[in-house]
Amino acid sequence: MSRMLHLNLFMLGRGHHEAAWRHPLASRRPVTDPGYYASLARTAERGLFDSVFLADVLTLGIGEGSASNLAGGLEPITLLTSLAGATEHIGLIATASTTYMEPFNLARQFASIDHISAGRAGWNIVTTWSPGAERNFGRDAQPAHEDRYAGAEEFMRVATGLWDSWADDALLDDQAAGRFADPRRITALNHAGAQYRVAGPLNVPRPPQGWPVLVQAGSSDTGKRFAARWAEAVFTAHLEKATALAFYRDLKALVVQEGRSPDHVLVLPGLSAVIGGTEAEAQRLARELNELADPETGRARLSGRFGGHDFSHLPLDRPLTVDDFPPPASVQAARSRTEVITGMVAREAPTLRQLLQKLAGARGHFTMAGTPEQVADLMADWFATGAADGFNLMPPVLPAMLDAFVDQVVPILQKRGLFRTEYTATTLRGHYGLPRPTNRRFAAAAE
Amino acid sequence: MSRMLHLNLFMLGRGHHEAAWRHPLASRRPVTDPGYYASLARTAERGLFDSVFLADVLTLGIGEGSASNLAGGLEPITLLTSLAGATEHIGLIATASTTYMEPFNLARQFASIDHISAGRAGWNIVTTWSPGAERNFGRDAQPAHEDRYAGAEEFMRVATGLWDSWADDALLDDQAAGRFADPRRITALNHAGAQYRVAGPLNVPRPPQGWPVLVQAGSSDTGKRFAARWAEAVFTAHLEKATALAFYRDLKALVVQEGRSPDHVLVLPGLSAVIGGTEAEAQRLARELNELADPETGRARLSGRFGGHDFSHLPLDRPLTVDDFPPPASVQAARSRTEVITGMVAREAPTLRQLLQKLAGARGHFTMAGTPEQVADLMADWFATGAADGFNLMPPVLPAMLDAFVDQVVPILQKRGLFRTEYTATTLRGHYGLPRPTNRRFAAAAE
Repeated sequence: MSRMLHLNLFMLGRGHHEAAWRHPLASRRPVTDPGYYASLARTAERGLFDSVFLADVLTLGIGEGSASNLAGGLEPITLLTSLAGATEHIGLIATASTTYMEPFNLARQFASIDHISAGRAGWNIVTTWSPGAERNFGRDAQPAHEDRYAGAEEFMRVATGLWDSWADDALLDDQAAGRFADPRRITALNHAGAQYRVAGPLNVPRPPQGWPVLVQAGSSDTGKRFAARWAEAVFTAHLEKATALAFYRDLKALVVQEGRSPDHVLVLPGLSAVIGGTEAEAQRLARELNELADPETGRARLSGRFGGHDFSHLPLDRPLTVDDFPPPASVQAARSRTEVITGMVAREAPTLRQLLQKLAGARGHFTMAGTPEQVADLMADWFATGAADGFNLMPPVLPAMLDAFVDQVVPILQKRGLFRTEYTATTLRGHYGLPRPTNRRFAAAAE
Repeated sequence: MSRMLHLNLFMLGRGHHEAAWRHPLASRRPVTDPGYYASLARTAERGLFDSVFLADVLTLGIGEGSASNLAGGLEPITLLTSLAGATEHIGLIATASTTYMEPFNLARQFASIDHISAGRAGWNIVTTWSPGAERNFGRDAQPAHEDRYAGAEEFMRVATGLWDSWADDALLDDQAAGRFADPRRITALNHAGAQYRVAGPLNVPRPPQGWPVLVQAGSSDTGKRFAARWAEAVFTAHLEKATALAFYRDLKALVVQEGRSPDHVLVLPGLSAVIGGTEAEAQRLARELNELADPETGRARLSGRFGGHDFSHLPLDRPLTVDDFPPPASVQAARSRTEVITGMVAREAPTLRQLLQKLAGARGHFTMAGTPEQVADLMADWFATGAADGFNLMPPVLPAMLDAFVDQVVPILQKRGLFRTEYTATTLRGHYGLPRPTNRRFAAAAE
């Protein structure tokens, strides 16, 4: 079988454009209505997408949500679980933080979601950087960038160890012999490390997929090394193809250095496409969205991205230089995204207004406006030339731009032989073409 | 309207009898199959029950589940969420521990479940006592009984404060004005106490029910005082009516002392009924179950209940005295249940084998075997004479004894005017007849 594109739908509010919720094409359903998210997931399933994805933040965020549709939604683990019953085939990925969750609780909830969805769960591993999150969890300060990743490494050893604490055949359920489980096929973990001590075993049998699919999105050097060791799919943000190509090449090389197959780590750049019947119609829609965006909301969001740095003195219409930004090493935030932004400033010297409009589209991910053919062309080009194994679709307005993608772009990709025409697998690992992790503690039982 | 019984279904494995999973009437579906739990919840909904309930333990437990059907199931918060989509009316209650969860994460997940279920969520508040749980969470020892409850008090102030951190009308979603939420109607909590520091606000809007329904099951003196302050429904275990009467009277008096209405705290004793077409048939079924139970599993479970006390030297067939048990004050476990057991030993001097068979039925809850009329008679009597506001139904074998209850006992209760003939409310608070908590931080908006 020839290599096929993989597609993930990133579900977020009424769409990824900051002003999406104000646009007439956006859904009017409440952001707390689970039926809204179920309908998006079913549309993505109609489009034969591999997966849907929910992001997360652990604070209410900027201005307490006064002008943002990104705040005040539902909690991802529970919302994701509710989507399992609303869909049949599609993979289900939620974000959860290694910084502010107990590994036993997290490993258990994801194992349970994988059972509930019959093998469709994925975990987007994040180390939390949002300023203020620490104050919801009794800490005085956010852990530093390096410490967050050191903690995440240990967290992963604990979580995967817990998933491996049951052999796949440990549950006997032998009514006649009165043996429910085989204690020789269940083992303690007895992890005792710098940050965690977890005895185990887990109290949930090994998930259908062995482990949920491990997803990661950090693009800093530390984040890439972490992804190379653990991730099976990587969401990544690029404002232009050149950086996507470089990222793809670097990451796959690091994966090989870690002794893993580059085919077992999918690189999925974000793509936010305004789709119109003609290019002019798409451009008009993109303009409407940008005109609805509030620059002061964008300025506050930019400050949040740069660890709370004060941008309030910057005029909107003077070209920026990198000196307007704090030095990268001083930023204890999600560094991958800040580097994308300062890189663009260095290259293009936009005004603050232009930068904020660029970021309003999809917060630093690639944006475009065009016809279905143009969108398919771009995807095919990135896929063929080593910039992507597929895409993290971020429709600027929901559900309209998702509907347009499924109805108009997917058929073109299928016609070109780049995308599946039916589901051929039942699990997320199956859709992504990933192997099931071998249990490191128990060899498979002899037949 | 006359006072009506309230019914909760306690869902557990293939039934509450320790040997249920070995009985031919028990379900053969895997314990990790969410469809199994969905079918039980739908049966309870067909029977117009107020709610279903999931318990929890944070360790795999005795003998690593080798002879128990109670271990290795799904995680309650995710499983409960999956039931929201599988049902329409029934309330959904899950256990979560104040001892080993972050209050921000817990408050957020339950707020989310209340949104996802449109106001049907309940939280069974537990302070975890299972020996060994501490070792899954990086602690050297379990917190002592009093410390667990002091922590739980503070946890409740944080959780309810987070649910009250949004006014009910804070979410504006005003597309034209570009105002998503009203920051004046959202407030920080800034809790700084002995065990928790939580800034808030929560990042989920106030739940449809204000707060999920608060459920509690501790029956020790400390547990009862906690219930009197916080609980809106109390699950309680009694081996005989006399202690149920005393518990009901004591708890309602404590509720009044706390300045609350006794009608706003429902007392729901556990009831595990083997139901047969004739009394002889019911007795035969009860005998079959007892004969399938393994006394050594029961002995290990008894040891677990008493904080790991060693009962291995006790012969099975010699009458017990209270001196065979550790002194109550030395037990750092769920004291309510240990007192039920030692009370029964003091009164009846059973042999260990007899005690274990009694406990195998429903782990210290009231058990009976009889016809549908006899079950209805007992329920009506407890309800009329001040022992119960309803029952926590614990079918000894699932789904058979739940089916029997719904098909044969519910119609008798309805005929006697003791139970609803249709759902008249849409939320769990509505089913239970409980008020919606006033937001303590925000008065309702002026009309």
